[in-house]
Amino acid sequence: MPIDNSNMLKVIEDFPLQCKTALELPKGISVSGKVDKIFVCGMGGSAVGGDLLKIYMQNSKIPVFVVRDYKVPNFVDENSLVFAVSYSGNTEETISAYQDAVKKKAKIVAVTTGGQLGSMAKKVIKIPSGMQPRAALGYTFFPVLGVLVNSGIVDVKGREIEEMLDILSKTEEFKTVGERIAKKIGKRTPIIYASEMLGAVAYRWKTQFNENGKVAAFYHVFSEMNHNEIAGYQNINKNDYIAIFIRDKFDNERIKKRMDVTKEIISTRVDVEEVFTRGEFLLSRIFSGIYYGDFASYYLALANRIDPTPVTVIENLKKKLK
Amino acid sequence: MPIDNSNMLKVIEDFPLQCKTALELPKGISVSGKVDKIFVCGMGGSAVGGDLLKIYMQNSKIPVFVVRDYKVPNFVDENSLVFAVSYSGNTEETISAYQDAVKKKAKIVAVTTGGQLGSMAKKVIKIPSGMQPRAALGYTFFPVLGVLVNSGIVDVKGREIEEMLDILSKTEEFKTVGERIAKKIGKRTPIIYASEMLGAVAYRWKTQFNENGKVAAFYHVFSEMNHNEIAGYQNINKNDYIAIFIRDKFDNERIKKRMDVTKEIISTRVDVEEVFTRGEFLLSRIFSGIYYGDFASYYLALANRIDPTPVTVIENLKKKLK
Repeated sequence: MPIDNSNMLKVIEDFPLQCKTALELPKGISVSGKVDKIFVCGMGGSAVGGDLLKIYMQNSKIPVFVVRDYKVPNFVDENSLVFAVSYSGNTEETISAYQDAVKKKAKIVAVTTGGQLGSMAKKVIKIPSGMQPRAALGYTFFPVLGVLVNSGIVDVKGREIEEMLDILSKTEEFKTVGERIAKKIGKRTPIIYASEMLGAVAYRWKTQFNENGKVAAFYHVFSEMNHNEIAGYQNINKNDYIAIFIRDKFDNERIKKRMDVTKEIISTRVDVEEVFTRGEFLLSRIFSGIYYGDFASYYLALANRIDPTPVTVIENLKKKLK
Repeated sequence: MPIDNSNMLKVIEDFPLQCKTALELPKGISVSGKVDKIFVCGMGGSAVGGDLLKIYMQNSKIPVFVVRDYKVPNFVDENSLVFAVSYSGNTEETISAYQDAVKKKAKIVAVTTGGQLGSMAKKVIKIPSGMQPRAALGYTFFPVLGVLVNSGIVDVKGREIEEMLDILSKTEEFKTVGERIAKKIGKRTPIIYASEMLGAVAYRWKTQFNENGKVAAFYHVFSEMNHNEIAGYQNINKNDYIAIFIRDKFDNERIKKRMDVTKEIISTRVDVEEVFTRGEFLLSRIFSGIYYGDFASYYLALANRIDPTPVTVIENLKKKLK
């Protein structure tokens, strides 16, 4: 009996193709007028694209806010560009935040397969349905990025996209590493770390372990973890936890040093695994970092004889909330 | 042999007094000119005040950013008000962020006991030294708030302060609850939850368990945890974890419902403890929420025969980083 009943493996393997398709979706869609703040409203898998946008635009003069809530901040106004991202189109928090953004006269673009949000919003980028939202990250990220490019807010070079697609297409290499990490984790709880800059990549790993693997998983960032969480390792047990560091060759030199020293210190209490992002451009480094984790969570599910696709607990919760 | 060698208990008990003293510190200090963005730069215990300011100003038209990094964002400019908060004055990330903010021509106020930051900054609020940074939260928060009041950016009512001091002064009640929770936790790893709005309160609990208790502790927020972390409870063991919900009577009604339903669902896998914030005003609710956790982490340290004050691992790390 196969465990991967809905073929999550194929969905993850096809991610480079998904990105390619997703890049075409925002064609011709843009906003006009002044934009001095960007907001991405979404929850769970549909919010991750917002986190990634925030990393991608880290050097921008325009702040990016990710809103995982029922309302948008009070400083949303007509110069705000709000993306309402909900894979299903029926996420109650995102619909509520969308309505709040309408009241505040923001420029709004919805990214969704349909649902209520698809009917309500005037400007919609429709994305392919039938997937788990977390598996549709290409479809929820690239349309947002595309609108920003089309609107003259962000400049993405062709060679950034090419490098990313080229790296992700070496799927077998990501699989191998993912499978190795899943084996290493075994029955232990993974705690995933990255620099503050790539914190969203570590968070994505955590949520993929939660949803694909159905196991506890946590994350934190450098250097903040050096100021508190590290003290907790004093009473941590090798059999209970494993630390995973997502490293990037462009991490601040002090962060690199902190990771090295932290590894040395906590290695007496836990095993530490390191994964290095790939590529020269930020886009490649973000998505290669994520792609390793997608496979790791997939193989962890399989090792635990768990079907990675269904998230019954979340479905039950939604029913009880009605 | 006493475990609480540096009398952390007294420091926590004196917190209401600390707040009172701290309220006087920013007298006469303000900034002038336009302020359209506020940044609080700090790490660990010195950054928590920034998180709390963000909650306190949640309905403001001026965004608040907490910067736990070596640099400030590129959108910092002459209309930005930057607080550089470092209890010791020697936190390398904060000094670096301070220097970056100077380059970007921001208005800057430093809050510190002295150190390098105390010498470098032109506008400094000097706070009492000799404490653990995490125990000096009153000293790192109220000076920042005071400058905003003095500058006409924030309006704090006298009765907000009175209610908060009145509630916190019932120290024995917080101790009792804190001790009860520490007992409940026992050898298990606490995972602390609050609404997105009060997420920083949950984070403070987590870090206090790490630093005072020297144990692993994690946190997340509602409703985001409903979209991923909850799935991990499928394979969580009652003996390993305990969930703590920090609840607030002004939480969004849907968040309240989500907390109720989540409790029902995860109770099959873990014990769930609930703590309710106190007071009508946000300031009281924030600080009462935090005060329970400060005592809980203190009593957890004692139960594990650990001195809550020294954080040897962090001191070692700092030495190795030199």
